[in-house]
Amino acid sequence: MPTEVSGKGLLLKADPIAATFRDEVKSTLEQCVRRPKLVGILATSSAPSKNYAEFTRKQCEDLDVEFVLKKTGAAESTELGEGEGVEEAIIEANEDESVHGIMVYFPIYGGQQDHYLQQVVSPLKDVEGLHFKFHYNLYHNIRFIEPKSLLASVMPPLPSNTTAESDVPPPGTVKSIIPCTPLAIVKCLEYVGVYNKILPYGDRAYGKTITVINRSEVVGRPLAALLSNDGARVLSVDIDSIQEYTKRPRVATNSEEAPKQRYHARHIVHPSNLNLQECLAISDVVVSAVPSANYKVKTEWLKPGCVCLNVAADKNFEKDVRDKASLYIPAVGKVTILMLLRNLLRLQQYQQVHSAL
Amino acid sequence: MPTEVSGKGLLLKADPIAATFRDEVKSTLEQCVRRPKLVGILATSSAPSKNYAEFTRKQCEDLDVEFVLKKTGAAESTELGEGEGVEEAIIEANEDESVHGIMVYFPIYGGQQDHYLQQVVSPLKDVEGLHFKFHYNLYHNIRFIEPKSLLASVMPPLPSNTTAESDVPPPGTVKSIIPCTPLAIVKCLEYVGVYNKILPYGDRAYGKTITVINRSEVVGRPLAALLSNDGARVLSVDIDSIQEYTKRPRVATNSEEAPKQRYHARHIVHPSNLNLQECLAISDVVVSAVPSANYKVKTEWLKPGCVCLNVAADKNFEKDVRDKASLYIPAVGKVTILMLLRNLLRLQQYQQVHSAL
Repeated sequence: MPTEVSGKGLLLKADPIAATFRDEVKSTLEQCVRRPKLVGILATSSAPSKNYAEFTRKQCEDLDVEFVLKKTGAAESTELGEGEGVEEAIIEANEDESVHGIMVYFPIYGGQQDHYLQQVVSPLKDVEGLHFKFHYNLYHNIRFIEPKSLLASVMPPLPSNTTAESDVPPPGTVKSIIPCTPLAIVKCLEYVGVYNKILPYGDRAYGKTITVINRSEVVGRPLAALLSNDGARVLSVDIDSIQEYTKRPRVATNSEEAPKQRYHARHIVHPSNLNLQECLAISDVVVSAVPSANYKVKTEWLKPGCVCLNVAADKNFEKDVRDKASLYIPAVGKVTILMLLRNLLRLQQYQQVHSAL
Repeated sequence: MPTEVSGKGLLLKADPIAATFRDEVKSTLEQCVRRPKLVGILATSSAPSKNYAEFTRKQCEDLDVEFVLKKTGAAESTELGEGEGVEEAIIEANEDESVHGIMVYFPIYGGQQDHYLQQVVSPLKDVEGLHFKFHYNLYHNIRFIEPKSLLASVMPPLPSNTTAESDVPPPGTVKSIIPCTPLAIVKCLEYVGVYNKILPYGDRAYGKTITVINRSEVVGRPLAALLSNDGARVLSVDIDSIQEYTKRPRVATNSEEAPKQRYHARHIVHPSNLNLQECLAISDVVVSAVPSANYKVKTEWLKPGCVCLNVAADKNFEKDVRDKASLYIPAVGKVTILMLLRNLLRLQQYQQVHSAL
C-alpha cells in the first residue's frame, strides 16, 4: 500500500543503512596486510548477551574478520559466578599482541563496576569506544587525535577552537574512536537526511531539535553531545531531569563578546524548564533508549512528521507511532556492529604507533 | 564507669587515630620546599558536601596547607544547575601548575557520570585516589609503582608475584595512591589491633574474618580488596549478593600446584552461600557503609567481642551495638581527611617526575 494512501510514516529497518557500511568495511579489509582479530568476552549467563555474541560472530565471519569468543564465569560453567574471571580475560587480551580489538558483553555487574571494567580494556583495543579517553574527546568535540595520545593518562590541554572544517584528519592525527551505539544512531540520522549535507561539516544538524530519552554514559549522554556538537538543539530527558545541550549561545548576554564566535567550540549543558510533552511537541527527531518494556513514548505527543528511532531492546514507541512519525527506525543493532568493525580496522592501524614506540 | 562493670564495649572516636597521622603529615610538611596547594571543587547545593568542604578547609589551615575552594554550578549561584561547570573547573585545576592536589565533592550527578568525572581528575593530582589507575593497582595488589606509570593509559603487565616484603618501595618505585576512605578504615583497624604487627607485612590481617556491607567502587569493593590482599577473609555484602574475597586457596584442587604458593598474589572473589546473619556470626570485624538512615546491622546477629566500624553518614549500627561489640568506631571522617593530605604530599613529590619529562 503506498504511503500516500495509508497516511502512515515509513518503517525503515537498519539493513540498507548497514549495507553501505558493510561495503566500506569490506573494501578497507581488502587493503589490510594482516587479518584483524577481534576477541569477544562473554562472562554472564544472560541470553541477550549470548545472542549478541553469536551475532558478532556471524558478522565477523561474513566479512572474514577473525573472531574468538572467550567464555568465562557463568558463561563458561554453571559452577562459576556471573562475571567471574572477566577482568583476567580482558587483561590477557590486552597483553596478547595477536589481538587487535576487544569487546566485552555488558551488563555484567552493572553500574560502577562495569564502568571500572570498561577502563581495563586498553584504549588501543577498545572497539566499542567505552574508555574514558574516548568519552572525554567526544564530550569536548575533539575529533582528531595524535595516535600517541592513546597511550597517555593525562589528557592534553583542550584546544581553544575545536571546529573542524572537514572530516579529514589534519596531518599527524587520526580520528578519535566514537562509542558504537551513539555513532550508529548518528549514521542512521545522516542516512535519513536529518543531517543536511549542504551545511558545513561539523554543523550539519543545525536547525534540528532532537529529544534523546536516556542519559546514561553508554548511550544517551554521548549521543546528546555528538548531536549538539554537530549543531542540533538536543533535549536530554532522564528519569529526574531535562537538560538542553547546544553549542549555540542561547542569549547574547555580552554583546561585545557575541560577534567573536557564532557558536561555542563544543556543546554547553543547561537545565531545561520544558517537560517531556513540551519537548516532544517541538522535536524533529525523537531517540529513545529506555531499558524497560513498560516505557512508551506517547504517539499523541509527537510532532507530526517527526523521525523516531528506537535504541532499546524493548520497543519504546507505541504501535501507532507511524500515525505521527514520517519515519520510524525500530532498531540500530545492525549498524552498531559495523561501527564496531570499523573501529577495529582503525585501531589496528593506530596500534602500529604503539608497537613503534 | 570501668568497662568490666558496664559490660559494654569501648566507644572509640577517630580523634586519637587521626592525631597520629596529623603528626606524620606535620613533620613531612616541615620538610617540604614548597607549600602544597589543594583545590576543592564544590558544584552542588548539598549541605553535607558544603560542610565537608569547610571541614577540609579547617584541616588544611590547621596544618598550614594552602586550600582554595572553587565553587561552581549550584554552589556558586542559585541560577546555575547542580554540577554546572564542574568538569571545566577540574580541567582548569589539572592544567594549573600551582595546584598539587584536587578533590571534588561527590555525589554530583551520581552513578556513571560521577565516575566519568573521577577520570577527568589527573592521576597526578588525584588526592582522593578515585582514578581508575589507583583502583586497578589496588585490585591487583600492586603496592609500588614507577612514577612515570602515572602518565600512561595502558597498564603495565601484571607482575606474577606482587608479594611485597615490606612497606618500603623498591628503588625506582613509589607507593601507589590508595582511595582515602578505604585506607582510613584500614588505618583504624591497624590502630585497634585487627592487623597483627607480628605477622609479616602484607599478611597482617590473616586469621581475621571481616564482613563489609556495601560493594560500591568508592568504598566497599576497594576495602574488601585491601583487607583480603592483607590476608583477611572478607565477606562482601551487597543488596543482592554476598561474595567472599580471599587470597588463600579455599580448597586444594590440585595437590601438585598447592605447595608452589601458600597463597595467591592477590585476592580471588567467589560467590558465597552464606546469608548476612551467618556472615555476622563468624565475623571478627563488621564494617558498614550503607547510605541509608534506615539500614541497621542487628546487634543480636553480631559475634560477641567483634569490632564494629561505621562508615556511613547515618549510623548503620543499633544503639546497643556495644552490648555485643568489644569496640565500636562510629565514624572515620577525621582519619579520611588526613589520608587525603598524606596523598597530597606524596603526589606533590610524584609530580616532579612529570615536570622532569
